[in-house]
Amino acid sequence: MCKECGCGLTEETSTKEAVKVFENILKFNEEQAKHNRHHLEEHGIFSINLMSGPGAGKTTLLEKTIEALKDSYRIGVVEGDLETERDAERIRSKGIPAYQITTGTACHLDAALLHKAMHHLPLDEIDILFVENIGNLVCPANYDLGTHLNVTLLSVPEGEDKPEKYPLIFKNSELVLITKIDLLPYFDFDLEKVKAQIRKINPKAKVHGISAKTGEGFQEWIEFIKAKVEEYKKSLASK
Amino acid sequence: MCKECGCGLTEETSTKEAVKVFENILKFNEEQAKHNRHHLEEHGIFSINLMSGPGAGKTTLLEKTIEALKDSYRIGVVEGDLETERDAERIRSKGIPAYQITTGTACHLDAALLHKAMHHLPLDEIDILFVENIGNLVCPANYDLGTHLNVTLLSVPEGEDKPEKYPLIFKNSELVLITKIDLLPYFDFDLEKVKAQIRKINPKAKVHGISAKTGEGFQEWIEFIKAKVEEYKKSLASK
Repeated sequence: MCKECGCGLTEETSTKEAVKVFENILKFNEEQAKHNRHHLEEHGIFSINLMSGPGAGKTTLLEKTIEALKDSYRIGVVEGDLETERDAERIRSKGIPAYQITTGTACHLDAALLHKAMHHLPLDEIDILFVENIGNLVCPANYDLGTHLNVTLLSVPEGEDKPEKYPLIFKNSELVLITKIDLLPYFDFDLEKVKAQIRKINPKAKVHGISAKTGEGFQEWIEFIKAKVEEYKKSLASK
Repeated sequence: MCKECGCGLTEETSTKEAVKVFENILKFNEEQAKHNRHHLEEHGIFSINLMSGPGAGKTTLLEKTIEALKDSYRIGVVEGDLETERDAERIRSKGIPAYQITTGTACHLDAALLHKAMHHLPLDEIDILFVENIGNLVCPANYDLGTHLNVTLLSVPEGEDKPEKYPLIFKNSELVLITKIDLLPYFDFDLEKVKAQIRKINPKAKVHGISAKTGEGFQEWIEFIKAKVEEYKKSLASK
């Protein structure tokens, strides 16, 4: 019963039920993520989960990253979208194996979806698997996919208030890329202020500005990935 | 049991349970939305649900819209964010009653959240209630709030492929505002192509370009709201 207007409606039952189911879903997702991680290790694959709001430039960054890495590593890609094969097609046109997940109405990828997708890729022929999550700054942050590195992109046009408004995704990311920094002159976006905000939410996060258009900051991103992959290979070898 | 790798994990139980709960949640939300609509009608309030991805410019548009309408109508605002009172404070600084919902991790507003928020506002002193939804192009589309008009904003920097990738929110909106059109010269964004795409998803949708910065297209937006409010008042009077 709503105390304010006595309308007889209450969200309590519905909410309690939902919280319980959500806990079960996250628990199941955790198991599945662990399983994915095991799968990836079996095949010696290092995997990166790219997250951001819609239009922060994940696919464009991925295309350029593939160009920069494909002579040194064998790459595979899993694309997540509600609809269309568009992004997977963009990647495949570069000769890279890519599997498109279309979720319909679901707002994030989960470990089970990634697991299914992985079995559509030639896992024995991949060194680095990029997963491009659904464009959403909220829900993807809740779901561990079993990947090794969470990277969140925040683009300059989205605005400098986003880390404070959507803290979880920044908290759960090892690296935050501030993208489209070539647009800084046109926007009221204080890069140093945003970096400080993110570090407040996640003191361990690296925060790095990048422009896929001008190439600024791009080489550092490539070196970061390479170092991570080599570190991973070493950890596998010592097992 | 996963057929591909025989891992013993299955998402089936978890998924079925989740689908059932989701259906219940939506059913409850529908009742609550109907109740909200009744509340709003009792008070003669016309209500607008503003949706978009993060950083498409909802709050800025709202600030300018309030300036343009506040001499003709009494305005109230409900703000939705994961964290911070920032947006409600921006609105209150204009002398407008505003209630901030912070959802924590939840990725959308629902009718029950709006219902609670409404009881924190002076409903007898409001003609138009704006609801600024969480910045998310996916989940808010699933939840009827009981408002009278769904408006979705898509900003030029987000990219022209978004309607095809996130169709539901465009399907459920009567008006789509293409925002930040002052940035068209800097982006590969074909306005006519995007309009055609949206009309394919939702033939009844009005699609309108706007810039809060230069004012282009702004007056048409204000006239659109005024016409909707007058139409609503007439429909109430004839009841």
